[in-house]
Amino acid sequence: MPAGELQDVFGGVDVPDELADHLRRVTLIDHHVHGAYDQPVDRAGFEAAINEGSTDPVPAFMTQFDSPLGLSIRRWCAPLLGLDALAGADDYWARRSEFAPDELARAMLPAAGVSRWIVDTGFKGDLITTPERLTDLSGVPSSEILRLERLAEDLLEGGTSAEDFPAAFRAALQAAADSPDVVGTKTIAAYRVGFDVEWSRPDDADVVARARDLAAQPRPLRLDDPLLIAFGVHEAAAHGLPIQVHVGFGDRDLDLHRTDPMLLLPLLRTMLPVPVLLLHCYPFQRQAGYLAQAFDHVNFDVGLAINYLGVRSTGLVAEALETAPFAKQLYSSDAFGPPELHVLGSVLWRRSMGLILGEWVRAGDCTEADAIRIVDMIGVHNAERVYGL
Amino acid sequence: MPAGELQDVFGGVDVPDELADHLRRVTLIDHHVHGAYDQPVDRAGFEAAINEGSTDPVPAFMTQFDSPLGLSIRRWCAPLLGLDALAGADDYWARRSEFAPDELARAMLPAAGVSRWIVDTGFKGDLITTPERLTDLSGVPSSEILRLERLAEDLLEGGTSAEDFPAAFRAALQAAADSPDVVGTKTIAAYRVGFDVEWSRPDDADVVARARDLAAQPRPLRLDDPLLIAFGVHEAAAHGLPIQVHVGFGDRDLDLHRTDPMLLLPLLRTMLPVPVLLLHCYPFQRQAGYLAQAFDHVNFDVGLAINYLGVRSTGLVAEALETAPFAKQLYSSDAFGPPELHVLGSVLWRRSMGLILGEWVRAGDCTEADAIRIVDMIGVHNAERVYGL
Amino acid sequence: MPAGELQDVFGGVDVPDELADHLRRVTLIDHHVHGAYDQPVDRAGFEAAINEGSTDPVPAFMTQFDSPLGLSIRRWCAPLLGLDALAGADDYWARRSEFAPDELARAMLPAAGVSRWIVDTGFKGDLITTPERLTDLSGVPSSEILRLERLAEDLLEGGTSAEDFPAAFRAALQAAADSPDVVGTKTIAAYRVGFDVEWSRPDDADVVARARDLAAQPRPLRLDDPLLIAFGVHEAAAHGLPIQVHVGFGDRDLDLHRTDPMLLLPLLRTMLPVPVLLLHCYPFQRQAGYLAQAFDHVNFDVGLAINYLGVRSTGLVAEALETAPFAKQLYSSDAFGPPELHVLGSVLWRRSMGLILGEWVRAGDCTEADAIRIVDMIGVHNAERVYGL
Repeated sequence: MPAGELQDVFGGVDVPDELADHLRRVTLIDHHVHGAYDQPVDRAGFEAAINEGSTDPVPAFMTQFDSPLGLSIRRWCAPLLGLDALAGADDYWARRSEFAPDELARAMLPAAGVSRWIVDTGFKGDLITTPERLTDLSGVPSSEILRLERLAEDLLEGGTSAEDFPAAFRAALQAAADSPDVVGTKTIAAYRVGFDVEWSRPDDADVVARARDLAAQPRPLRLDDPLLIAFGVHEAAAHGLPIQVHVGFGDRDLDLHRTDPMLLLPLLRTMLPVPVLLLHCYPFQRQAGYLAQAFDHVNFDVGLAINYLGVRSTGLVAEALETAPFAKQLYSSDAFGPPELHVLGSVLWRRSMGLILGEWVRAGDCTEADAIRIVDMIGVHNAERVYGL
Repeated sequence: MPAGELQDVFGGVDVPDELADHLRRVTLIDHHVHGAYDQPVDRAGFEAAINEGSTDPVPAFMTQFDSPLGLSIRRWCAPLLGLDALAGADDYWARRSEFAPDELARAMLPAAGVSRWIVDTGFKGDLITTPERLTDLSGVPSSEILRLERLAEDLLEGGTSAEDFPAAFRAALQAAADSPDVVGTKTIAAYRVGFDVEWSRPDDADVVARARDLAAQPRPLRLDDPLLIAFGVHEAAAHGLPIQVHVGFGDRDLDLHRTDPMLLLPLLRTMLPVPVLLLHCYPFQRQAGYLAQAFDHVNFDVGLAINYLGVRSTGLVAEALETAPFAKQLYSSDAFGPPELHVLGSVLWRRSMGLILGEWVRAGDCTEADAIRIVDMIGVHNAERVYGL
Repeated sequence: MPAGELQDVFGGVDVPDELADHLRRVTLIDHHVHGAYDQPVDRAGFEAAINEGSTDPVPAFMTQFDSPLGLSIRRWCAPLLGLDALAGADDYWARRSEFAPDELARAMLPAAGVSRWIVDTGFKGDLITTPERLTDLSGVPSSEILRLERLAEDLLEGGTSAEDFPAAFRAALQAAADSPDVVGTKTIAAYRVGFDVEWSRPDDADVVARARDLAAQPRPLRLDDPLLIAFGVHEAAAHGLPIQVHVGFGDRDLDLHRTDPMLLLPLLRTMLPVPVLLLHCYPFQRQAGYLAQAFDHVNFDVGLAINYLGVRSTGLVAEALETAPFAKQLYSSDAFGPPELHVLGSVLWRRSMGLILGEWVRAGDCTEADAIRIVDMIGVHNAERVYGL
């Protein structure tokens, strides 16, 4: 299918020229992302995929296009499919359906202007690409993030005995640390246990006992033992691996109020200080920024929420620029599934940064060179430092 | 008394023409409101009535006119009484005192541009109108909301035995469901127990036991038993009745932090999925929007707070447009007492929506037709759907 | 050293003339501040002093100048040292190093336009000025705040027996109440115990027992007993002394989520109603404003955070103007150490108020006279009332 072109990310707004040009051109490191759909989805599946919170189909009385994210898809992605910006939802869907999944991905992914994807492979699904395939479709390299809970489940499901579990887990982390592909780890403690748990480093004897309990459960295993999760986090730190932490916004299976990142204080105060990356963080972005000021090893992003807030993401990106040093924030899309999300994360972040920093420049609160340097730190350099790229 | 006219709600600001015209003319469903004063109040009573948080008289060192709400009353309501906009507080009070209560109501209520009041009759007071009288004074129809805690108290105070209580409560709910006037129910669990309670559906035997305990208390009864409150909510759901839930901002009798709507997750995940309407929600509007995305049956508004934030309500209305689908938000004033509040809720919401959506239109983030449709969904259609109007 | 001049606080922005002129000239009461550095600091010390959250040196991979506060220092303080606005961090540091500490203080402090410093002397350090010296360097008078935990520690370290402790504590408070210099007290319960503790007024017998336990600890004593802290607060109230309460934003030793001011409800509802001053409050400014509406004796500020948010403080100051009556908010810098912080608190507050209230004036939401009166209430008159100045 003949695709179209990305519209100017500063269409309709006024951003100082040099800053705008830089934001149009800079290639970003998307430090937390998932695969794109590699298989066809129907409209119901697509609409469900652009609702993060719900785990049900979108109800008949509404369409998920009627949301901030839906508006942003119509605005920015319709032209990528050769439609006018803000084409109607039905027109968008009709046109999108003419593209094969790989055509869609090839039409969308390059428009993200990303130089590297750092891919969480922990939640694979059947419909989304591997990192290799994402690289193939987008033309840029991928690195990998190892999900700690998944690693534990895989080991125990694969026949590792409880007694061997601590050593096997450490060996897998050492292999990850030695691999050129794996640049960090991730915990979804938010989904499994919440943050208000005991975070001290457990003894191996306790780990073995809990692994035995877990291994006795029906398959597929679901690790929801705080002690085993704490074990994974402390072992990742002991192996010098950066640790991404899902914080805040996610689906309704998590207790959002129990993912306030302040509840991580007992861990952050005592752990080995490998880089911690607080992901998403909405609506706790101010708390996350505060932690990034308070701890040398804490960094954060507002990915995922940028996409879901659409036009309102400018307010979120602004709140993320409150108390944190500029060296402690990163860019991510947290896109999963529709390649629209891989593009939009980037477009909305660039536009928000231009609007916010452009206003700072105009009001004399920083120089245009300062603004450009802030963009480069958050969009590129901090990720290079944190992951040793 | 000769009254005046409402000033243009877009005075002093610039909103795209069609959107502005639509917002000036659309008649709203005020889906959560109380009666207006039907009796004279003195200035002390009026000032106390425009302070939501306090339960004391306004202290001598200040006037409640010196607040965001006070400024908005002077701006928008002074012209309705024939004064200049922003007339001083003393002038406003002097002029207001020349009007009889029904003259005031007739001068104010029509300016709200409301097509239907959905009236919470649970907190009656002696000074405020019945729904019938509100309709008489405003010229538009009223529907009613049945307050669940009040219903239980009325039954037990009226002589229903504890043994008969479950059946009598169900019969009352069935009568409500059958009534053309009653369109939903409301719980003030926030005031009585907070949200961090056990929300599972109780057995009748337990309900009877607790009803016996309650009935033994001195009159007037005050239901503050979590089990009886959970009973009420689950019974309302079982009768297919929408359930309004007071969330957040209210007077100091409630523990605001224990009304974070995330604490309702155990209820929302397990209840029969009748429409739930999270009311007010400030300062948890982001959490409420998230829940409205996460659960098909959850809806919310930012009423009450819109009035109390006055000019700052634009920021609040903007935050309410973050993650929730547009089909899941409703308009309300939550006005109680001074008819100024019935008007202001509407004026401030229209103005905020015009400012926010107008900027989206200008920046190319949605079409003017999109903006108008969003207004209609939140202001009219979602309420029609939720309450079956 | 020849110093420079403060740039126009409304440079780069457009604020109505009379309001702008008033905000440039009004002299503020800084109702919560600490001393300024009286001794030289090296760059590492300075950078650590402009990071509130951390208790470590700034790491090698970054400079704390790359933060919102850092930008504001470069913008507003560089001209005070004779540099161009937004001079680079290294140039700023080189120039600053040419000034002796008293020269720096004399170059900076008068630019704050403060008419009185109300100084918390509880955390003295070796490097910062006494109130007398602050007055000497700035040319304006100082009042003092007595820190309650420090008073208790000083008494017990000084040899007061546990049996004599209650009476000695009361005598010291009476002396404070009688002193023309001391205008109030402060509790750092946030740092020592969090707010989710028992706040009822203890019996002397229990106080004596706890004082005995505390006195038996190694020196220096660190009061972290909730009962003794509650004793201090209730005694201060019994002596009619205003009570400042550290809320929210501070260093990582505190559990930020346990300093949500809503957790103070049990205290606020039952204490003798002397003025309570909730300090800083970020990111709980909306909760603080709500409490200031709900309780006659509660007031608040957003000091400290204004400095740390720099250009973003405008959004914070705007949120602080939501539900609280204008008679219940105060101005403070909470500066500690670098005299840059004493100036910036004032500059950023004036600029934010001009931007916010100027927009209200332009949009017709208040008169320019209203705006000026709001400035005077928050910047001057409320502090005069609360502290009886």
